[in-house]
Amino acid sequence: MKTKVVKKENEGVKVIPLGGLESIGMNITAFEYGDSIIVVDCGLSFPADDMLGIDLVIPDVTYLENNIDKVKGFVITHGHEDHIGALPYVLKKVNVPIYATKLTMGIIEHKLKEHNLLKSTRRKVIKHGQSINLGCFRIEFIKTNHSIADATALAIYTPEGIIIHTGDFKIDYTPVFGESIDLQRFAELGKKGVLAVMMDSTNAERPGFTNSERTVGQSIDHIFDEHRSGRIIVATFASNVDRVQQIINSAYKFGRKVIVEGRSMVNIISIASELGYIQIPNETLIDIDHMRNYPDDQLVLITTGSQGETMAALSRMANNTHRRVSIKPGDTIVFSSSPIPGNEKAVSNIINELFRKGAEVIFQDTHVSGHACAEEIKLIYALTHPKFAIPVHGEYRHLKAHAKLAEKMGIPKDHILILSSGNVLELKDERAKVIGQVPHGGIMVDGLGVGDVGNIVLRDRQMLSQNGLLIVVLTLSRYDNRLLAGPDIVSRGFVYVRESEMLMEDARKVVDAAVQKCLDGRVSDWSKIKSVIRDTLSDYVWKQTKRNPMILPIIMEVDV
Amino acid sequence: MKTKVVKKENEGVKVIPLGGLESIGMNITAFEYGDSIIVVDCGLSFPADDMLGIDLVIPDVTYLENNIDKVKGFVITHGHEDHIGALPYVLKKVNVPIYATKLTMGIIEHKLKEHNLLKSTRRKVIKHGQSINLGCFRIEFIKTNHSIADATALAIYTPEGIIIHTGDFKIDYTPVFGESIDLQRFAELGKKGVLAVMMDSTNAERPGFTNSERTVGQSIDHIFDEHRSGRIIVATFASNVDRVQQIINSAYKFGRKVIVEGRSMVNIISIASELGYIQIPNETLIDIDHMRNYPDDQLVLITTGSQGETMAALSRMANNTHRRVSIKPGDTIVFSSSPIPGNEKAVSNIINELFRKGAEVIFQDTHVSGHACAEEIKLIYALTHPKFAIPVHGEYRHLKAHAKLAEKMGIPKDHILILSSGNVLELKDERAKVIGQVPHGGIMVDGLGVGDVGNIVLRDRQMLSQNGLLIVVLTLSRYDNRLLAGPDIVSRGFVYVRESEMLMEDARKVVDAAVQKCLDGRVSDWSKIKSVIRDTLSDYVWKQTKRNPMILPIIMEVDV
Repeated sequence: MKTKVVKKENEGVKVIPLGGLESIGMNITAFEYGDSIIVVDCGLSFPADDMLGIDLVIPDVTYLENNIDKVKGFVITHGHEDHIGALPYVLKKVNVPIYATKLTMGIIEHKLKEHNLLKSTRRKVIKHGQSINLGCFRIEFIKTNHSIADATALAIYTPEGIIIHTGDFKIDYTPVFGESIDLQRFAELGKKGVLAVMMDSTNAERPGFTNSERTVGQSIDHIFDEHRSGRIIVATFASNVDRVQQIINSAYKFGRKVIVEGRSMVNIISIASELGYIQIPNETLIDIDHMRNYPDDQLVLITTGSQGETMAALSRMANNTHRRVSIKPGDTIVFSSSPIPGNEKAVSNIINELFRKGAEVIFQDTHVSGHACAEEIKLIYALTHPKFAIPVHGEYRHLKAHAKLAEKMGIPKDHILILSSGNVLELKDERAKVIGQVPHGGIMVDGLGVGDVGNIVLRDRQMLSQNGLLIVVLTLSRYDNRLLAGPDIVSRGFVYVRESEMLMEDARKVVDAAVQKCLDGRVSDWSKIKSVIRDTLSDYVWKQTKRNPMILPIIMEVDV
Repeated sequence: MKTKVVKKENEGVKVIPLGGLESIGMNITAFEYGDSIIVVDCGLSFPADDMLGIDLVIPDVTYLENNIDKVKGFVITHGHEDHIGALPYVLKKVNVPIYATKLTMGIIEHKLKEHNLLKSTRRKVIKHGQSINLGCFRIEFIKTNHSIADATALAIYTPEGIIIHTGDFKIDYTPVFGESIDLQRFAELGKKGVLAVMMDSTNAERPGFTNSERTVGQSIDHIFDEHRSGRIIVATFASNVDRVQQIINSAYKFGRKVIVEGRSMVNIISIASELGYIQIPNETLIDIDHMRNYPDDQLVLITTGSQGETMAALSRMANNTHRRVSIKPGDTIVFSSSPIPGNEKAVSNIINELFRKGAEVIFQDTHVSGHACAEEIKLIYALTHPKFAIPVHGEYRHLKAHAKLAEKMGIPKDHILILSSGNVLELKDERAKVIGQVPHGGIMVDGLGVGDVGNIVLRDRQMLSQNGLLIVVLTLSRYDNRLLAGPDIVSRGFVYVRESEMLMEDARKVVDAAVQKCLDGRVSDWSKIKSVIRDTLSDYVWKQTKRNPMILPIIMEVDV
């Protein structure tokens, strides 16, 4: 496992995060040395609250496109959307091989299939403990634990030393599937000497240790034991295969059949089951169409929608819009999840609705995080003793909290590096310095459009959403600028017109007078007329209603 | 204190919640007997996420308007917006006297002044322990504790028995200002016999006791002690006068001058100080304009914006848009608050921004709730032993959790009443029954408009916010339906037009062809033409972009 890479004079290894450091999501980091670039992860982020109508956000990879000849491949740490979700978009521009563990690759392949990219993409499944050579880098996959199976940390051997990238991780001494995190290997590398550790910061603000996934299994068993009558419906994250396994185990133990509901849940379970990451006893899984053949106390539904997503299965069940399942008294609904920040209200709304339908709802002690808390972060530092600490994965507050932990662990303050996306960090001769900046940022995806919605469009959507709009249309004669028709006012999202007929009619008169005055004064410049309409109407409406609708004058011209 | 009210045959006392039972906020409950109605509280609620552009929501008081001759007055439990905020709107329709404690009345008067309603509104300040007679009701004010001073519970003496309404409350044995909650009086009433208790459910899901406000004072003292250099900026709720008092105490103790920032903070502190609810040592308060005369380590700012509100002082300081204060390294910012559900992300965003500016940010152990937890709720039941429990103030999940506590306290299940807004609950001869329904609901206020924005307008705003709109304009001849101008397409919030010129031009051609076909086919019905335009364009756009903008055809007609 000795690395032999030739060290070049006058050049260090560059670490270039292209996303993921300003908020949760969109994780992608390039490592560059000489003529080699490798890219760790390629995630998307979900739109911020002010990105109205946007489906998802992907990273700007201009830097990779500009250096396409150097790029050797994507190395993926695990199968969550914030680490793989941008692949289908980015591969169209940067078509290089993907390296990942088996389950991660299974999930990626499903995604590529949907985008018709499976054939055109080279892929290689890597096992924990195995290493690959990409250009001048050697990359070793090290087993970790996370809220999705088959997560990996990476030891990246560079000419300047070893950089460890943990990916998202936690330490689970008693995982549900497979081995515990390979702490021995972290220790071994630490003994050897580690240049830098880039480590998950998500839970850096939380003291102590994250509980083992197995503790949730015990809670679920307990809930099944206490609720012997009625259906049990468990909502959780589709990708948490170990969680699903434990729910299935409890179902089997208590003689209940399992129904899986929600598209993403069905997909992931079928991938995990096919690849051997989940064991489903014979005849345990039944189709939703056969549900009616079983009494309620022999049924468990495992469903999506634990985040209160309006279109997910659980919401539809709660609102009686699901084609097969409606919530009824006697049902027990378990949220095996906690709300992702920003989803608290949506989750609370659905909990209220479920209670209203007469169900019992359980949402406490039924979830553990997939991320390392403070003591776990400290343990990794204790084992690896890196020269540099680079907190990653988290909002700025989490990176700061992580930095404080690193400092406590004896890493000098100037060796703790909080980077920004686009930074080019050079590590050379055991010194670290941000030496430049490359293009970076989020590209918004709306429907099929990638990048065609920008700030102007968003600002318009924002304005329309708050106050609606008033459209003023009029037709002028091309020859003598005579008013042939209009001005008429059409409104949308402004007021309920039937209730406000007077207001709208008065507004029309005010605009009419202003337009007439323009035309009488021989103003023939359309942009001038439009600006008079805008000012007049906006003044009038503000005075009457204290509102600021968008005002859109449209002038048509006719050849008479 | 003996009540003498004549009991009528065939009639019970009616409890009619007009709001407040479907979500947090908009608390207002009518109590009716014979020809007397009293109204407890008159609050607003803040708009739900899907109420785009709405400023606030007030209750429908049609029932009170229809029975205006019976209505004797508003009895207010405390000065929070969700208990007093709708008064300025409702008083215009239901102009009856207001009864409240001194600080509560001070805050109400400030509000009435802003709405020019002070002169036209009769008001009476009531002391704790005092009773008033309103129609056939006697109402006694009982001291409680809450996150605003001068909160009161009400014992409402009715011909059917005593109904206790707690308002929002907690039990604080060591309050910062004034007395602890008058538990003895609750006990005395319990001995006498209580018909029903209507009690705050907000924290019913939380086990244990809510900590005393004084514990926050100790934390703040500790923070001041540990941070002797640099400015300290404390963000908290404007109305929490006791909190502000404790911050001022710490400032005084550690030799710092206090600056108050944010309009609502300045208002409340001036009202509280005038009425003697806050003690500010001489020369402690300074004007923000004199800030520059003091070194940083002699300054404390108390500010609004603890909920991440974009326009509040703290946000503006963090974003360098505040006219006097910008956050800088060395500042310590204390969030003496916790995020109200739904505000988590906004608060996190501002914490990130403050860290980015180099400040230290403290947000743990610096706040206590103003609401009773499970053990406090149980204590009130133990003291009052009511025949009926009516959980109020909270989302449905909280009312359910409260109901479980009441059951544990020995109240029979069928004597625990979870009401819905608009229900008419009759209590008669120690029986309770919902006997009817009155109009109720939220009326949306947008600018000056009260109720002129309804579901159609909101649906339009929602649609506009997600996908923007396409306007198709064309001019026809009145005589022969000839196309004189257009069709032109104008878009807003759809795509960035310069990037999508081709798409827009092709869309125009598609619409043009469809319109020509209509006209060639002698279709002269405008609604038919509009529907063809809508269908054609919407199909085309969906195929090209997988988006669904609003499509708005406008036809003009010219006399040629």
